[in-house]
Amino acid sequence: MAGSSFGTIFKLSTFGESHGIAIGGVIDGVPANLELDFEVIQSELDKRKPGQSAIVTQRKESDKVQFLSGIFEGKTTGAPIGFIIPNENQKSNDYAHLKEAFRPSHADFTYQEKFGIRDYKGGGRSSARETASRVVAGAIAKQMLQSVGVRFSTYVDQIGKIQLNSADFYQSELIESNIIRCPDAQVAAEMEELIRTVRKDGDTIGGAIRCVIENVPIGLGEPVFDKLHAELGKAMLSINAVKGFEIGSGFEALTMRGSEHNDLFNTDGTTKTNHSGGIQGGISNGMPISFRVAFKPVATLMQSQESITIQGEAIELEGKGRHDACVVPRAVPIVEAMAAITILDFYLRNKSIHL
Amino acid sequence: MAGSSFGTIFKLSTFGESHGIAIGGVIDGVPANLELDFEVIQSELDKRKPGQSAIVTQRKESDKVQFLSGIFEGKTTGAPIGFIIPNENQKSNDYAHLKEAFRPSHADFTYQEKFGIRDYKGGGRSSARETASRVVAGAIAKQMLQSVGVRFSTYVDQIGKIQLNSADFYQSELIESNIIRCPDAQVAAEMEELIRTVRKDGDTIGGAIRCVIENVPIGLGEPVFDKLHAELGKAMLSINAVKGFEIGSGFEALTMRGSEHNDLFNTDGTTKTNHSGGIQGGISNGMPISFRVAFKPVATLMQSQESITIQGEAIELEGKGRHDACVVPRAVPIVEAMAAITILDFYLRNKSIHL
Amino acid sequence: MAGSSFGTIFKLSTFGESHGIAIGGVIDGVPANLELDFEVIQSELDKRKPGQSAIVTQRKESDKVQFLSGIFEGKTTGAPIGFIIPNENQKSNDYAHLKEAFRPSHADFTYQEKFGIRDYKGGGRSSARETASRVVAGAIAKQMLQSVGVRFSTYVDQIGKIQLNSADFYQSELIESNIIRCPDAQVAAEMEELIRTVRKDGDTIGGAIRCVIENVPIGLGEPVFDKLHAELGKAMLSINAVKGFEIGSGFEALTMRGSEHNDLFNTDGTTKTNHSGGIQGGISNGMPISFRVAFKPVATLMQSQESITIQGEAIELEGKGRHDACVVPRAVPIVEAMAAITILDFYLRNKSIHL
Amino acid sequence: MAGSSFGTIFKLSTFGESHGIAIGGVIDGVPANLELDFEVIQSELDKRKPGQSAIVTQRKESDKVQFLSGIFEGKTTGAPIGFIIPNENQKSNDYAHLKEAFRPSHADFTYQEKFGIRDYKGGGRSSARETASRVVAGAIAKQMLQSVGVRFSTYVDQIGKIQLNSADFYQSELIESNIIRCPDAQVAAEMEELIRTVRKDGDTIGGAIRCVIENVPIGLGEPVFDKLHAELGKAMLSINAVKGFEIGSGFEALTMRGSEHNDLFNTDGTTKTNHSGGIQGGISNGMPISFRVAFKPVATLMQSQESITIQGEAIELEGKGRHDACVVPRAVPIVEAMAAITILDFYLRNKSIHL
Repeated sequence: MAGSSFGTIFKLSTFGESHGIAIGGVIDGVPANLELDFEVIQSELDKRKPGQSAIVTQRKESDKVQFLSGIFEGKTTGAPIGFIIPNENQKSNDYAHLKEAFRPSHADFTYQEKFGIRDYKGGGRSSARETASRVVAGAIAKQMLQSVGVRFSTYVDQIGKIQLNSADFYQSELIESNIIRCPDAQVAAEMEELIRTVRKDGDTIGGAIRCVIENVPIGLGEPVFDKLHAELGKAMLSINAVKGFEIGSGFEALTMRGSEHNDLFNTDGTTKTNHSGGIQGGISNGMPISFRVAFKPVATLMQSQESITIQGEAIELEGKGRHDACVVPRAVPIVEAMAAITILDFYLRNKSIHL
Repeated sequence: MAGSSFGTIFKLSTFGESHGIAIGGVIDGVPANLELDFEVIQSELDKRKPGQSAIVTQRKESDKVQFLSGIFEGKTTGAPIGFIIPNENQKSNDYAHLKEAFRPSHADFTYQEKFGIRDYKGGGRSSARETASRVVAGAIAKQMLQSVGVRFSTYVDQIGKIQLNSADFYQSELIESNIIRCPDAQVAAEMEELIRTVRKDGDTIGGAIRCVIENVPIGLGEPVFDKLHAELGKAMLSINAVKGFEIGSGFEALTMRGSEHNDLFNTDGTTKTNHSGGIQGGISNGMPISFRVAFKPVATLMQSQESITIQGEAIELEGKGRHDACVVPRAVPIVEAMAAITILDFYLRNKSIHL
Repeated sequence: MAGSSFGTIFKLSTFGESHGIAIGGVIDGVPANLELDFEVIQSELDKRKPGQSAIVTQRKESDKVQFLSGIFEGKTTGAPIGFIIPNENQKSNDYAHLKEAFRPSHADFTYQEKFGIRDYKGGGRSSARETASRVVAGAIAKQMLQSVGVRFSTYVDQIGKIQLNSADFYQSELIESNIIRCPDAQVAAEMEELIRTVRKDGDTIGGAIRCVIENVPIGLGEPVFDKLHAELGKAMLSINAVKGFEIGSGFEALTMRGSEHNDLFNTDGTTKTNHSGGIQGGISNGMPISFRVAFKPVATLMQSQESITIQGEAIELEGKGRHDACVVPRAVPIVEAMAAITILDFYLRNKSIHL
Repeated sequence: MAGSSFGTIFKLSTFGESHGIAIGGVIDGVPANLELDFEVIQSELDKRKPGQSAIVTQRKESDKVQFLSGIFEGKTTGAPIGFIIPNENQKSNDYAHLKEAFRPSHADFTYQEKFGIRDYKGGGRSSARETASRVVAGAIAKQMLQSVGVRFSTYVDQIGKIQLNSADFYQSELIESNIIRCPDAQVAAEMEELIRTVRKDGDTIGGAIRCVIENVPIGLGEPVFDKLHAELGKAMLSINAVKGFEIGSGFEALTMRGSEHNDLFNTDGTTKTNHSGGIQGGISNGMPISFRVAFKPVATLMQSQESITIQGEAIELEGKGRHDACVVPRAVPIVEAMAAITILDFYLRNKSIHL
């Protein structure tokens, strides 16, 4: 049963494989009569695309989005927005050696077993290339949310053991001031150094992204299953390579006592601390929403690895191709896109709470 | 817009407030013609209920489930199973002092703001009492999964800073051999000691639960949004007091290199390590599924706390009533129930992959 | 895969069998902070219940609804409303003769074949008794819609060949002034006479119900699949014994030319005729919504009929028990309930069209 | 809230406007590893396209579908199938006169009122052009169903008052042997004559389509709301210009007695008559499914008509452009496509009835 849609009112359905003709999506439930800035949408896509800096994969994709419907004279009409991003890089020969092979910690084995068939070129449907469609939808969602005051700050919080010691809301300019997308230049430099070292070893490294969202209206989130942070968690865990999610105090809450952890109220309804991460009982409380997402190291190595074929024979997989030593900086726009889609969906869901 | 349902094929809808007439639910999409063991279902509920040991709340609820439909001569008919659990404890006077007050880090404020009205008795709909309905559905799901070989091991992994140093699959007998539900008697004793200390202080403490699931068929999970671990993450994050979720290596993956983290294959398709936690590309790979869930300390303290009223006046909230110093042991059956509902739902979803 | 829920925002899930412990439902997505008139809800149920007049089945059911949740101090809280209607009539011996038999034009055969098991008592889940739960939800929906001005007029339009020659909006008092629920006393008398004749023969007869809805706001309905009349059609066709649905001109449109059929505009946006039945392009246009629903004759006869057993042996089924010669008058509140649920759902769906 | 998706497991989402860049869709939940015949898909589209005979609109569209994803080496992969049909006819000047006008019995008024904006070119999203995407998905569904033996026979049953007096299953060759798609050559000729007469008058005429489906497995349909004929009814009523739907005996059931209407069993479980139309209790019983769909006359006339502008001023609309005097022959592949999508979806839904 299909799982290619996300959202209930603002609903994105994506399609497309890494080396197919095009990837794309349909966004249904788009609020009507709103003007879109297409340059901003494209610039979000550019943040995710390969080849943007020395430390990422040099695969060439211009990643130009084409809108096919749902927009009339620059405005949304309420009809579904269909869009495609053509794949320019369809050199299928690069992947002939993977036709019969299962790459370790990739989805090759599970797709083959589940579907009985798989598009092995560049990971096919399991490729993170699919997330470009999410960035398009997220960029639209973000524009709509900005018009009601919601603001996002998403940045690299950790690479390997190097961590930023702050969970503040940083301006986009600061985040984009270095190729790591870490708002502290000093920490960013250390992270970059680590990635370069790992890359030289033909190895990869994981990291974490923090997302802080300000000005979220009070009341978003639908108990008891569709709690706001539950859906944010699902949104993040659906991104390739994500292994963990925590909201507010997160795993640190384990070691805290209730008397430390409780967020006491100011008389205006704000709280003195924000261990809740902006959400109480699954509903936004007006404080900044803050969560952290853990990414594992990329599975594709520039080293040879032992593996097996479809027939179960042991083989040696060589490391070749154009790959990222660390995807975390490129994942920043994806995390922000999924957060924006989720928040906008709950914003729209909240409209039917009262008659 | 409503959020009281979970699952797509095996679908649970719950209703009911902490101090209303009854809580309950409807399970739709139940596979037909299967025999149910009602004693086992009740025994799962008993694991969650209050008053079961010296360290938990002494609120008296017998928590007897009554099935109203969907079962004929002991077997499921494929029709929806409706059930209720009557609330015996409806002493509403206990809560008169909360009518106008917002308790810190509870959902009082957000429910009032969102809905413009709230059932303040015992937290109303936001009370963890609702999770009893999940345990009923989970117990049914677990019986069905057991008949196809799937087995669960869910236990307390951490209380405060005291952590079990193992992620093994433990037998239920071992887990149930102490009131903490930690399979290591020595560690459990330390945890119990910690909870008693915290309780004496009128304070509370958080913890973590690990769930290990064996024999999950290969192929469960629906790319790209409904990845198996994304839905498991949502399931867990929808449980009261949960602040974090990690699958397999989880947040530890941050500091690992790809060459360490990759799970190399054996020639039979199993893997030599299991950092993936039994899921690759969002699809189960046949290895044990292993995840960890973080619970914050309970927000209700037996200490007085500063707070505010609906009118925004500062007040002093006294600590009274019957409350848990640590909910983590009682949350074990809830985590297992939500895991079972999720796995069964994906098991049924997977049936339509082929014509 | 389950089919026991209806609606997307205002969502009803029902459960329960004809002769089980209770039937009931959960309504999720109920707008918050609205007062309910419980006597009105019960009186709607009374219109549907058996034994209300000489021409309907004399099965005794008091059909008292009990609300379990979602209501606090007489008002909706936004939490799901759970409710049950206990079955008083559980004399299962009445149905022992049907354990092995398939009744013609009932669902006995298809349920047995689909599920491999069936609750044969009184038709089990396939009994029209389930529709009592729809009447409860519909009565709630209707109250909410009334508060925004929407009004319903639902009545018997045809029994056998006797038809009312009008599609007007009639007041409830007129409709309820006779046991047929036909607003023209003369026509109603003829219909009653026909039903009595058919009944004496141990036979049954079909009929049609018309529903006219005034003051529906312009703009309800979601292209392209969830057109307002498409969902109304589904709602009606999901009612037991319904064989046809037509909106506005309906099947008469077949023989009309476009120049006759087109509804020309007045300058205020209303139309001079209403062949569209209040819906254009799937969206309400502010004119009265008007549709007609065809019911087949009841399948249970007071005559003996040839049939077969589960084993495929020919048998003679005797006509016995307490049954309706014509269900159409009792189906009036069901049609109105499903219409109200549908309209309210679209009313709420329309709230997210604009940011 | 969005309504551009149909189906639960085999799920089609469409996008696109009449005169936009392209229309298209995404089909999610496609069973994996099945070979597709692309020529057959295109030939279904050709049956729907304009300009195919003298009696239909002469708008030029080659309607060539391009598949973008979900297919690998000619087989489905289980990933979503994205496809587009470029619009060749984008002469927007044709529609400048409609920018400010509302056409009678079109969706111009309701779209403008609902969304506050509308793409007025050729009806934008409300145009029947959207149904081409349904035909693509239906052609895929039909191929899959054919592989399990299900066969469709869909034909014109009535134009104006001229009706075919048979509800048989006709072979495709017979149906396609004339431009009316009526399997009786004599009746077809009368229908064609009528359409030509109406056309000469600058007028339009309605009609009905019958669909007969053989070899549907017993057991499809999900009580109580998702009855097979309820979903078929919704599918049909979602097609442009449809005003009515009836299953089996349909509106004729009104005048029948139960003793006539009941379908008595043969000892093999088949029935002697088929007033039920192949569905009992909402579940297929193995007999041919037979339903009829009523289409109103096309609203666009080649005559001048009175109408109003957005500002509420009375205007005279001239009849010009390229339009159908009767859409019913071109609607045959649309009806069949929606039927196939519905049946396949229920076929897949039925797979999870048993564990």
